[in-house]
Amino acid sequence: MGPHPAVAAIRLAVRRVLHDILDEHTRNPGEHGRPSDGPGRIPDAPREREPSPLVLVACSGGADSMALASALAFEAPRLGVRAGGVTIDHGLQAGSDLRAAEVTLRLRELGLDLVESVAVTVGREGGPEAAARDARYAALDAAAERHGATAVLLGHTRDDQAETVLLGLARGSGIRSLSGMAAVSGADGRYRRPFLRLDRQTARKACMAQSLPVWDDPHNTDPAYTRSRLRHEGLPALEKALGKGVVEALARTARLSRDDADALDAWAGRAEAGVRDADGRLECAGLHALPPAVRRRVLRRAAIDAGAPAGSLFARHIEEVDRLITGWRGQGAINLPGRVVARRQGGRLVIRQG
Amino acid sequence: MGPHPAVAAIRLAVRRVLHDILDEHTRNPGEHGRPSDGPGRIPDAPREREPSPLVLVACSGGADSMALASALAFEAPRLGVRAGGVTIDHGLQAGSDLRAAEVTLRLRELGLDLVESVAVTVGREGGPEAAARDARYAALDAAAERHGATAVLLGHTRDDQAETVLLGLARGSGIRSLSGMAAVSGADGRYRRPFLRLDRQTARKACMAQSLPVWDDPHNTDPAYTRSRLRHEGLPALEKALGKGVVEALARTARLSRDDADALDAWAGRAEAGVRDADGRLECAGLHALPPAVRRRVLRRAAIDAGAPAGSLFARHIEEVDRLITGWRGQGAINLPGRVVARRQGGRLVIRQG
Repeated sequence: MGPHPAVAAIRLAVRRVLHDILDEHTRNPGEHGRPSDGPGRIPDAPREREPSPLVLVACSGGADSMALASALAFEAPRLGVRAGGVTIDHGLQAGSDLRAAEVTLRLRELGLDLVESVAVTVGREGGPEAAARDARYAALDAAAERHGATAVLLGHTRDDQAETVLLGLARGSGIRSLSGMAAVSGADGRYRRPFLRLDRQTARKACMAQSLPVWDDPHNTDPAYTRSRLRHEGLPALEKALGKGVVEALARTARLSRDDADALDAWAGRAEAGVRDADGRLECAGLHALPPAVRRRVLRRAAIDAGAPAGSLFARHIEEVDRLITGWRGQGAINLPGRVVARRQGGRLVIRQG
Repeated sequence: MGPHPAVAAIRLAVRRVLHDILDEHTRNPGEHGRPSDGPGRIPDAPREREPSPLVLVACSGGADSMALASALAFEAPRLGVRAGGVTIDHGLQAGSDLRAAEVTLRLRELGLDLVESVAVTVGREGGPEAAARDARYAALDAAAERHGATAVLLGHTRDDQAETVLLGLARGSGIRSLSGMAAVSGADGRYRRPFLRLDRQTARKACMAQSLPVWDDPHNTDPAYTRSRLRHEGLPALEKALGKGVVEALARTARLSRDDADALDAWAGRAEAGVRDADGRLECAGLHALPPAVRRRVLRRAAIDAGAPAGSLFARHIEEVDRLITGWRGQGAINLPGRVVARRQGGRLVIRQG
């Protein structure tokens, strides 16, 4: 009798990602960089001369990351991979150090080769959720460097992805903000999200089937948090109106939007060179001839290059700069975040600080 | 004392669209096709040699389209435009003929130059909502032709747009389905939606301020309809979770997605020629080199050209065809809707019916 279907599902998801990691790690000539490009792509095990790669899992003790840790502990030894677990103590709740100790205990029980708890200090920049995230990734980056890890696995599920898409939708700043979380991200593709096509329920069932105790973070049900309100009220109401397929549709929207945004960014990168004069100034006529989607991206890049902080630069800012090109009626300079100013001067668009 | 702010808002929205229509109608050399490209774009009135253009409004008797009709009746004579109103009797509810007669009465009271009620027979194709829409647009097209109308105004608001984006999101078929309704659509840009940036509440207030009776279509509150559930449950819950800006964010997403989708479609159109061999067959190597977003669009076009009905061709179909290019492991033919089959043969992708 095989494992419980949920356990089989989480293991398969992790196995696939480990194969990708091994593919890239062993760097077989002709195979690297196009991991899905032909038969025989899956190496049996790392080459002897290669050290055994280390893959870490970031684990909060919640159902998603506990399921992920359990699947990594099961699959890694079968593929000649060393597996480690890291839990971050954010120090934001009383007793968080005890929680972290408990999680490390559970990770050790799973038989991981390396287990670590890292305490971080969460700042205030960008609000509590963003500050906690920044501190967490900095600690995970440092842990990966310290141990020479090839990859760090994150437990985000398809449900998390759907929530992220809706959060991006609420910003209304275009398809990049709809593209959610990437399956592969970070420096050298360090972060991997094996569960991005798996639902939260499967992760929870896999924990139950394996008798793994899980911790439910009270933040996840606290209506003070936008994501929590979305999870417990917004998304269920949307599912009730639109049907159960909404989560899958949002996750697919993320994948498609990411590819679309990448292609348009690449186009804008090429187009930019073509609309600059000999002195590197943007020519309005050239900008006008570009498709609106490409022009707006060129303008956004130019504003960021001039010093506007990307996070404060909204679609409405770019729309206003765009009107200097497409709706020119002699209007004055446009003020952008970061003391950046855009103005039209003699057929040129000048975007600079001050 | 000027008009009520809501009345001022609906009139301004209609005035802008009438200016655009006049711009295009008079076709001043150097101005046409770039209506927002420089000062002095607004002509005072049509040239004498031109006949006075006729603009129709499609009116259900609901608040949105009654507000639109009232604004058209007010603005049109000031710009030398003839104004007409058409109401469609879908024959789906008992007494719908009486309703239509009542709406024509109200439209006449607004002082429109031409008022007409058209009875249509709604078929069954694509479900009740789609069938009613098809019948409605066919009747509006015919009315526009019959009267030689330059444009037909539609009362869709920003709220309708937000709902349309969410409906598209639920399909999960990419950014084209997120792009909602266009401000200008139909043959020769016949249909115009002046209220796409105005909220439903403003239209309703404008009716109240002008003591215009409005009719609330019971379909709009019937939870049997997806759009109605979205309007009364889904969207309010989303606003509660994400904040009041959601409707505006969804409408902005629609505008940005439309431009993005247009740019990528144009790219795919150009790319397609480059990946066909001398016999017009698609070359897998050329397809592989394209960005995924462009390649998927080329594949979608090829499937539609081969006879697959666009409405039944989903993202998952295209993903499967794409794997013949990016994940080739000798897999068999892929069946697509409309008896279209895609297969890889000797480095070529063959997509054809049968």
